[in-house]
Amino acid sequence: MSVPKRATDVPSWNGILPPSMKLPFIDTPDSVTYNAMKLAELTPDPRMREILVGLVRHMHDFTRETSITTDEWLKGIKFMAAFANQRQPPHIEYMLLLDVFGVSTLVDTINNPPVKNATASDVIGPFFMPDAPDKENKDTIVDDTNGIGKAEYLYFEGRILTTDGQPIPNVSVEVWEVDEEGLYDLQYESRDAPNGRGRFRSRADGTFEFRGVVPSAYPIPLSPPLESLMNAWNRHNMRAAHVHFWVKAPGFRELITQLYPDNNEWVTTDGVFGGKRSLVINLKRVDDKSESEKRGIPGARRSTMLSSTSCC
Amino acid sequence: MSVPKRATDVPSWNGILPPSMKLPFIDTPDSVTYNAMKLAELTPDPRMREILVGLVRHMHDFTRETSITTDEWLKGIKFMAAFANQRQPPHIEYMLLLDVFGVSTLVDTINNPPVKNATASDVIGPFFMPDAPDKENKDTIVDDTNGIGKAEYLYFEGRILTTDGQPIPNVSVEVWEVDEEGLYDLQYESRDAPNGRGRFRSRADGTFEFRGVVPSAYPIPLSPPLESLMNAWNRHNMRAAHVHFWVKAPGFRELITQLYPDNNEWVTTDGVFGGKRSLVINLKRVDDKSESEKRGIPGARRSTMLSSTSCC
Repeated sequence: MSVPKRATDVPSWNGILPPSMKLPFIDTPDSVTYNAMKLAELTPDPRMREILVGLVRHMHDFTRETSITTDEWLKGIKFMAAFANQRQPPHIEYMLLLDVFGVSTLVDTINNPPVKNATASDVIGPFFMPDAPDKENKDTIVDDTNGIGKAEYLYFEGRILTTDGQPIPNVSVEVWEVDEEGLYDLQYESRDAPNGRGRFRSRADGTFEFRGVVPSAYPIPLSPPLESLMNAWNRHNMRAAHVHFWVKAPGFRELITQLYPDNNEWVTTDGVFGGKRSLVINLKRVDDKSESEKRGIPGARRSTMLSSTSCC
Repeated sequence: MSVPKRATDVPSWNGILPPSMKLPFIDTPDSVTYNAMKLAELTPDPRMREILVGLVRHMHDFTRETSITTDEWLKGIKFMAAFANQRQPPHIEYMLLLDVFGVSTLVDTINNPPVKNATASDVIGPFFMPDAPDKENKDTIVDDTNGIGKAEYLYFEGRILTTDGQPIPNVSVEVWEVDEEGLYDLQYESRDAPNGRGRFRSRADGTFEFRGVVPSAYPIPLSPPLESLMNAWNRHNMRAAHVHFWVKAPGFRELITQLYPDNNEWVTTDGVFGGKRSLVINLKRVDDKSESEKRGIPGARRSTMLSSTSCC
């Protein structure tokens, strides 16, 4: 007769006593919610209390209003659990989940209300990487030693201004975008070095400029649980074409945003609710070879120039 | 110059077109919620539509009412992601998360409203296993070949009746409980065979009886993210002492429930909101050795007899 071994991490009491107030027995849906709300209201930290009271109220209201069945409750649990073992790290999966529900954009719009004369903000998205290389103005952010295939060149000329219209020099402007395949460098099997990323500095007059490719709309990577959600919702998984910017200047608020070319069929139904009206910009087609060459566009290919009046 | 390899599962468009209705540009928190609600209202399946409309409304209302900051949004994402790599499978972790918010009990009370003369239901909990062995009445469900240590013997005498008071024979009564250490068999490092579990059949007069141990209150196993939640909430992680029952009879609704001994300090603050008033039962102490021996209690130890009037 062998005595089974106890698990190495047997759970233990966390040492917290029941509340001193008397709670009623739970007999009905109302008494469950009453007890959970009472406990939430006893949370010591004021901000944590607001959040827990809000979570209990809305989780319970949702459950009650929709009369969630036991089967649906279990399906919901399995849905959440399914994100644990996908190809992308779980925090990317949960961010995408909040993205497609519009919660991420809602948080962005709440926390970054419009400022007069300032470029609007947008969500950071899951493809930011902190290793963008420092570049000189006019440099390219895409590796085009082999020439680029499907995409057109993009030449971006921007200017960083105060909301009073004064140029700000030496501002860090970090840029990232998909390549000519509609993929971020992170989406390749191997990634020896960043591609489609660069960090620029504004000149004395606030200007900066760089070369890249005209971004294409691209599908959000959907893991099986997210794919099943989008299918049940009958929603496409496309992101409107965009270029990401993160602008940092000492003494100023940071600006995380995206700019959307205007020939953009997905822009008001963007899968993650990106695409503010003021972030839609015009691209100007440049077919003049001398203009292209002036901007370092290799070969005789035509360039596309993007102009913007963003400020931070 | 090597061309980087594309990822093997490059995301693709799911083939769903934007809705034919024109959605406004997103510029404000209100327009995010408006667009997300409009898309939810276009969900084809009526039940899925109710659920998505409810989720969008409550997720957005919660975010707006509490003015979730960008930092909090990221903390929330990391909190959800942290459940992915815990010792227990993720669906157990997410079930526990809904349990401590009272949502699981709310679902139970909504789906199983009180029925006159019937024993109330309770949540199934994460420790059910479908491999309980078939037992004869009077058998023990705990392996006590070595004698039991800290716990007292429990002798349970029950009867399965219709709500009209008629006995129901041959009803499957599945029982599971913690052992004398306050642990389920699943919580041991190795588990060669079920312990603390058994499936009984009611006799012609509806009665069934079995031997076990008096259950003890026990701590819910808290993974680090759940532990941090409970600490911030200042809530203990104890479950009131209980024995689980799953009663199945052809032609009758199934009953999943728990019974709680009355000397139970945690019963109205139970960590997962278990413990309905009608499920609290009296244990009757039996010090008469002949009564103990009649019930097969090994040795001369005193037994504790639990009586119940549950019916299904």
